[in-house]
Amino acid sequence: MTSESTPGGPLDDPDYRVGVVELLGLLGFGELSAVEELNEDAQQAPDLATKVAIHTMAASEWRHFVQLRDRLVELGEDPYAVMESFRATFARFHTRTETSDWLEGLLKAYVGDGLAADFYREIAAFLDADTRQIVLETMSDTGHSEFVVDQVREAIAADPKVAGRLALWSRRLMGEALSQAQMVVAERDSLTALVVGAADRPGGFDLATIGRMFTRITEAHTERMGRLGLDA
Amino acid sequence: MTSESTPGGPLDDPDYRVGVVELLGLLGFGELSAVEELNEDAQQAPDLATKVAIHTMAASEWRHFVQLRDRLVELGEDPYAVMESFRATFARFHTRTETSDWLEGLLKAYVGDGLAADFYREIAAFLDADTRQIVLETMSDTGHSEFVVDQVREAIAADPKVAGRLALWSRRLMGEALSQAQMVVAERDSLTALVVGAADRPGGFDLATIGRMFTRITEAHTERMGRLGLDA
Repeated sequence: MTSESTPGGPLDDPDYRVGVVELLGLLGFGELSAVEELNEDAQQAPDLATKVAIHTMAASEWRHFVQLRDRLVELGEDPYAVMESFRATFARFHTRTETSDWLEGLLKAYVGDGLAADFYREIAAFLDADTRQIVLETMSDTGHSEFVVDQVREAIAADPKVAGRLALWSRRLMGEALSQAQMVVAERDSLTALVVGAADRPGGFDLATIGRMFTRITEAHTERMGRLGLDA
Repeated sequence: MTSESTPGGPLDDPDYRVGVVELLGLLGFGELSAVEELNEDAQQAPDLATKVAIHTMAASEWRHFVQLRDRLVELGEDPYAVMESFRATFARFHTRTETSDWLEGLLKAYVGDGLAADFYREIAAFLDADTRQIVLETMSDTGHSEFVVDQVREAIAADPKVAGRLALWSRRLMGEALSQAQMVVAERDSLTALVVGAADRPGGFDLATIGRMFTRITEAHTERMGRLGLDA
């Protein structure tokens, strides 16, 4: 069942393998980090039903985390050591996007969930079958953040000024996410080559390919914000 | 599949039904409350592997919560309204047992997990088949707190004075748990009758029956503390 047992498989390429391990570590730390952010949001929920909706999102991210972690173990890696190397990336993002109220927290969860799904979709095509399987399973278990749409729309209906503030907030989130992503690109060649599908192309990747990926993700974000009633 | 569709089943007895609904609400709020306590503990974990072990416990409590909540929905109840009525009980317990460090948090999680399992075992025999099924499924999914045993034993090995402090702490936890349980007994006749198996006995329950149940639970707690190297 594992690629480990497939001699001559893509994971025999050391560069590809480093990329996959880093990818799983990045996604894993990201999911764990999302779980912890959602747990903090849940503490602020105005009622039990909303609190449970937040915990339901967190439970879904937790399942993703477990799948990614288990895949790292299957590949013979120490999953926590691999993930640990991405701690600084997420710490920087979270420090720079500390939420000041309940709605900002909700929106951050929603934006993060959406960006993760877009990113998973971008990379799925470039992965070996086993790794892709995990990414697809992870993506299929979404939709738990849809209740955010109602909450944000209600808040805007009750006070239209909220829309401007949240639109600014969503731009800040996106800006910080892209800035951290660019640092990862600068630091991790194998991971970047994998993500933009350049691992098997001679000459590797160029910055334009990465730029196009970031543009697609930004466009999807803008569309999502539109559904919330926000100008992104 | 539900008892709802069984005319003449035990849930047709209004007193039994009230008891079951309250029981599910009590257990549900307890599980949710455990999830939130564990989430706070996880923030203090000394490393990623331990953090993940705590989240694994929380994920297990969360699954219990979902089963209990869904059963309340099946019974036609508003699960959050039912659970909400137990908020004060758990708030009192948690206020009086606020943890001052990582080891106290770990021990509280372990003690709570053990007490819950003992309590589930006590009541399983007195429940209708559907409700019992949920309680048994919930109990079968345990063992995630066993890593606490190692952590506590290591801490005591490193500093034997820790044992005295934690033994005091565990007595305080047990005392507060019993005191809250006694308040529930005083306030909830149908629930209490159900829990001590008196729902179908003429004359209902007497305090001696309840006392014996508390004694059995206390003995199991003492035994568990012994395994940790603590005098309870």
